[in-house]
Amino acid sequence: MPRIRLDLAYDGGGFAGWAAQPGLRTCQGELERALATVAREPVRVTVAGRTDAGVHASGQVAHADVPAALAPATAQEGERLALRLSRLASREGDLVVRRVSLAPAGFDARFSAVSRSYRYRIVTGPADPLERRTAAHVPQPLDADAMARCAEALVGLRDFAAFCRPREGATTIRELREFTWRRDGQLLIASLTADAFCHSMVRALVAACVRVGEGRLGLARAEALLQERRRSALTGLMPARGLTLVAVGYPPDAELAAQADRARARRSEADLDD
Amino acid sequence: MPRIRLDLAYDGGGFAGWAAQPGLRTCQGELERALATVAREPVRVTVAGRTDAGVHASGQVAHADVPAALAPATAQEGERLALRLSRLASREGDLVVRRVSLAPAGFDARFSAVSRSYRYRIVTGPADPLERRTAAHVPQPLDADAMARCAEALVGLRDFAAFCRPREGATTIRELREFTWRRDGQLLIASLTADAFCHSMVRALVAACVRVGEGRLGLARAEALLQERRRSALTGLMPARGLTLVAVGYPPDAELAAQADRARARRSEADLDD
Repeated sequence: MPRIRLDLAYDGGGFAGWAAQPGLRTCQGELERALATVAREPVRVTVAGRTDAGVHASGQVAHADVPAALAPATAQEGERLALRLSRLASREGDLVVRRVSLAPAGFDARFSAVSRSYRYRIVTGPADPLERRTAAHVPQPLDADAMARCAEALVGLRDFAAFCRPREGATTIRELREFTWRRDGQLLIASLTADAFCHSMVRALVAACVRVGEGRLGLARAEALLQERRRSALTGLMPARGLTLVAVGYPPDAELAAQADRARARRSEADLDD
Repeated sequence: MPRIRLDLAYDGGGFAGWAAQPGLRTCQGELERALATVAREPVRVTVAGRTDAGVHASGQVAHADVPAALAPATAQEGERLALRLSRLASREGDLVVRRVSLAPAGFDARFSAVSRSYRYRIVTGPADPLERRTAAHVPQPLDADAMARCAEALVGLRDFAAFCRPREGATTIRELREFTWRRDGQLLIASLTADAFCHSMVRALVAACVRVGEGRLGLARAEALLQERRRSALTGLMPARGLTLVAVGYPPDAELAAQADRARARRSEADLDD
């Protein structure tokens, strides 16, 4: 069966997360239902980042193995299929299949991915009605410089257990490659990139910086938190609505097959959650 | 009675426009109800820009004459009143009173205003689920340079009758001071500033540029449209959801009283719609 790559965007507000769950509206559930309608047989979708309930995506990537008749032979066929799937899977346009293409040999949306990038948006000062579904709101003043220093201190190849929801047997060692803050008017926007993030890690990292920015947590204490390697009462969690998966990075097509073999070998060791 | 100035933001999606209408949820209606609850007497609100159904605002300004007990004596009192009114007037945070302050002498939210600024947002390419309530969607390619030239050609002190919904006896002469386009990723964003805009003028001006950008209307034809001084089949109208009132300009406080006298004299001549 040919494999297709799906580039996706969604407003997480109307979904109980990515992963299919009986009786709940989920991104995977709606997309698999749409694909099954078009393919006239069950289709399983594998995703790069299994986002939590309420988390958005602008650059999510998934793959599916589909009947040959469904695999787009041209860009136009891909566009038509993308539009059809978007119509079938979305409610008032809250899920958009931006692109459908034939996956290159060896491509696996989850295991080929070498990086995930997220944005976290915070409205500071008075609430913003136009951002109430896409940003957290922190009315009290935030020290953006202290938040930038906190973010910088957390970057690196580390054991992020203090910022991960624990999971039996799963590693919490991740390489956080980028964690920066920028201001855009009333918004503070965090950009984070890592090889992979463990469960709830982005929202916990952002929460640590916000506490530092509020003056409730010293920078040294935030760094010490990391050293403790386990969640504590100091590990906060920002609301899902401010979080968006913006990009997934893959190696060049030519390297995918060799990388897939290596990744398969690592599967039992590593937990690539989101 | 002391006059207060209210700085407002709202998501127009849940409102049948600004102006109070029996049986419909409107910004004015909800705000007057909230003020009446706090003041324990009817309060009338006057606004700078009477936005249409579905149009958003981030920098709307209004005034109201209120019982002395309600007028905030300190910034803290203003903040408390703003929060209270926001809670009473909004549904899931869709209307926010950002600030309540004592209005300077001679201040009138509508007649003191010397400029209104709007943004219009268009998502190009595939639809964006996170912008579906705050931007129009134009999937076909747009020639941004041609749109910029169209915008530039429309700037000036002119009779904008071709872009105004006609209204008995009302002038359609406006000074369009700024009309520019910029790209931000997949978004095309128009910024417009004028002394005032007549009804549906921003959405008609943007529609003309979009038609030029699509290649459906020549630039010369768009300019000729302006010369015709009446609406024609070529006058388009972009959807309300892409439009946001972002700012209202006022003269310095010291000039307000003298300006108010002049403005009062002009009231019968000019139609200051939005």
